Amino acid sequence: MKHINAEVITIGDEILYGQITDTNSQWISAELDKIGVKTIRKTSIGDDKKEILDILTEAQKRADILIFTGGLGPTKDDITKKTIAEFFNDTLEINQDALENVRELFESRGFELTEINRQQAAIPTKATYLNNAVGTAPGMWFDENGKIIISMPGVPFEMKYLMENEVLPRLRKHFKTPFIIHKIIRTIGIGESFLASKIESWEDALPPHIKLAYLPSLGQVKLRLTGFGDDKEKLKAEIEAEAEKVYPTLGQNLFSKDNEELELVLADLLLKENATLATAESCTGGYLAHTITANPGSSAYYLGSVISYSNEAKMNLLGVKKETLDAHGAVSEETVIQMAEGAKKALNSTYALATSGIAGPGGGTEEKPVGTIWLACAGPDKTVTKKILSTKTRLVNIQYGSKSALGLLRKMILKEI
Amino acid sequence: MKHINAEVITIGDEILYGQITDTNSQWISAELDKIGVKTIRKTSIGDDKKEILDILTEAQKRADILIFTGGLGPTKDDITKKTIAEFFNDTLEINQDALENVRELFESRGFELTEINRQQAAIPTKATYLNNAVGTAPGMWFDENGKIIISMPGVPFEMKYLMENEVLPRLRKHFKTPFIIHKIIRTIGIGESFLASKIESWEDALPPHIKLAYLPSLGQVKLRLTGFGDDKEKLKAEIEAEAEKVYPTLGQNLFSKDNEELELVLADLLLKENATLATAESCTGGYLAHTITANPGSSAYYLGSVISYSNEAKMNLLGVKKETLDAHGAVSEETVIQMAEGAKKALNSTYALATSGIAGPGGGTEEKPVGTIWLACAGPDKTVTKKILSTKTRLVNIQYGSKSALGLLRKMILKEI
Repeated sequence: MKHINAEVITIGDEILYGQITDTNSQWISAELDKIGVKTIRKTSIGDDKKEILDILTEAQKRADILIFTGGLGPTKDDITKKTIAEFFNDTLEINQDALENVRELFESRGFELTEINRQQAAIPTKATYLNNAVGTAPGMWFDENGKIIISMPGVPFEMKYLMENEVLPRLRKHFKTPFIIHKIIRTIGIGESFLASKIESWEDALPPHIKLAYLPSLGQVKLRLTGFGDDKEKLKAEIEAEAEKVYPTLGQNLFSKDNEELELVLADLLLKENATLATAESCTGGYLAHTITANPGSSAYYLGSVISYSNEAKMNLLGVKKETLDAHGAVSEETVIQMAEGAKKALNSTYALATSGIAGPGGGTEEKPVGTIWLACAGPDKTVTKKILSTKTRLVNIQYGSKSALGLLRKMILKEI
Repeated sequence: MKHINAEVITIGDEILYGQITDTNSQWISAELDKIGVKTIRKTSIGDDKKEILDILTEAQKRADILIFTGGLGPTKDDITKKTIAEFFNDTLEINQDALENVRELFESRGFELTEINRQQAAIPTKATYLNNAVGTAPGMWFDENGKIIISMPGVPFEMKYLMENEVLPRLRKHFKTPFIIHKIIRTIGIGESFLASKIESWEDALPPHIKLAYLPSLGQVKLRLTGFGDDKEKLKAEIEAEAEKVYPTLGQNLFSKDNEELELVLADLLLKENATLATAESCTGGYLAHTITANPGSSAYYLGSVISYSNEAKMNLLGVKKETLDAHGAVSEETVIQMAEGAKKALNSTYALATSGIAGPGGGTEEKPVGTIWLACAGPDKTVTKKILSTKTRLVNIQYGSKSALGLLRKMILKEI
């Protein structure tokens, strides 16, 4: 079984200067891994002709596939396209499909098409054009001397569009790779080491061609099963059979057998019982709402939120009592209960979640250190609360607070609390 | 003027599989940049002997300094140290300072020192030991054949400790480097290609030792000026002088001469006039609020938000009229005006921003396609609106809508509209 190897090359002075973190190469190699292509090296170079020519020569000696991102903008410092053309003794010509795409994008935004933008549709004649429906820089695919060379823009959402719609399907077709199948099971409310000892005997009994990995983040632990084999359907069935064996042990901590985000699992639960959700956020400051509304279709069950950063907003929009704030402070069980019940009433929802905490870096006290977060969930019959102690980092507290609030809602809907 | 060049090499299978994002190389190159060392390439390779030997040979041809991170753990898969020793025909010997450090760390944690941990203190005899006070893996410094080769552990806080306390001071002492200075100017509301043609004559007249780059994202374009020279103060003054020349041309599109985020520029503007801000979000669903509240200290000027996903929330919490929703729909100039004015009133703020649009992927019509977003800003004297047409991608629309709303607020505060 021969491995198909790839080298991922990101181009941009801003990467070398350390002004941005290259996240493209991580995403790309994770996607390649899913179709059985192994990334053997990642390289970042500057917007520099000699560097680009050198890496084209070097990387072709190492890898079957070269994937470039970056350096495709309309300005003078972006030279990837013409340098690749030079490498292949090729010239740039306007590609009609690419031109049509650029024209459409400009028309839809009501801008005039300038010559500099027209030139974005010029690609080497040896390249196959890859349609970038979300931007003006074209994707390119070269099949030369037995090597596949791909060039995409560095803007992450344009690169992802091209990978998903053009590059990955073409690679799957071009190479016949062995099958690698991943299955991810998600758990919540149990730490990595406790989980590991709980399922130890199951893990030890896994067949050698099925591997297990633990991926923890923000109160969740994902279990990733990875199987290798030549018969796709058989492999899939084997992985499913192994997974089935562990579900009873996971119990209430299991929330998705299919790597779904907690927000989506909750969406199903809410829709199933025709219920709606509202939120009232203090320390999470809109992130909880964003986590929910980032999902298409969320307006079917999500009614809205009151982000009550000020005490006035807590009183006027949510009906939190002044005496409660005076006696217990904004970060307290009493306040967060009134916030949740106030949001449920104001937005007329079935359930309402509320958060109030010290996100930091300032504002902590000995009694309520940075990272202290109170959560409440108001439901049809009762309101439940939870206090968590997160970290000292503002953004982590915002994210962990939001995820934990969703975890509380799940427990209430499932009548576990 | 000779540049000192570095290549940053991160080692680890987990990087190649795309399981973690390599943030070390970004941090390292940003620090090198500050002392005038230019990173010419970044490479990530696996925990693989041949790969490590190859890159040692290759990178020494390109760079004056090789900086390795990763592969220094006590387990079998970490082979960096012995492979570097093999490369230099060297052997590993226990270093007494390193052993003392490991012993101290284990004692302070109350653990017994095992043989496997004792071996962590073994380093090649040609290496200078770099003291890692925060972990058990040693740092190493080689000065061979005119090249500096540095090896550090991959754990970010250990690497940072070694860089700050050992590597950077030694590099500054070893090389007498020229200075590299960056200055980033931020613009909003003008596309990359329009901006480029607007400032073309200025760009063409830049002296050869000052370079310009365009860095676009979500409605903003950053202009990065990079200068090279021996006299730091003179170079700084030259870059400032060049920047001064372009400010008038940039006009209202310029929002930061010093690479600040728009949220922070707005925070300054609001605090300066003792003003407060509220928001009312429909399509951006909490992301606008999150963008603001992600910043420490935002509670000084930000009062809160009403996220009115449902029409009921728009009516009950923001006072949007039923007739307006019936006649014009939720995504309309009329509705977004009432949302902004309603939020200003409900939260008693100086300014209020509102968003309403079709985030997608569903819900688009011919008249109002996915990506249509109405924005309004209500201020002390008036309310202004703006319609934007974003993309077909939900998350981009959410982010672009939020950034554009902040841009609208800036214009109002500056009395440009």
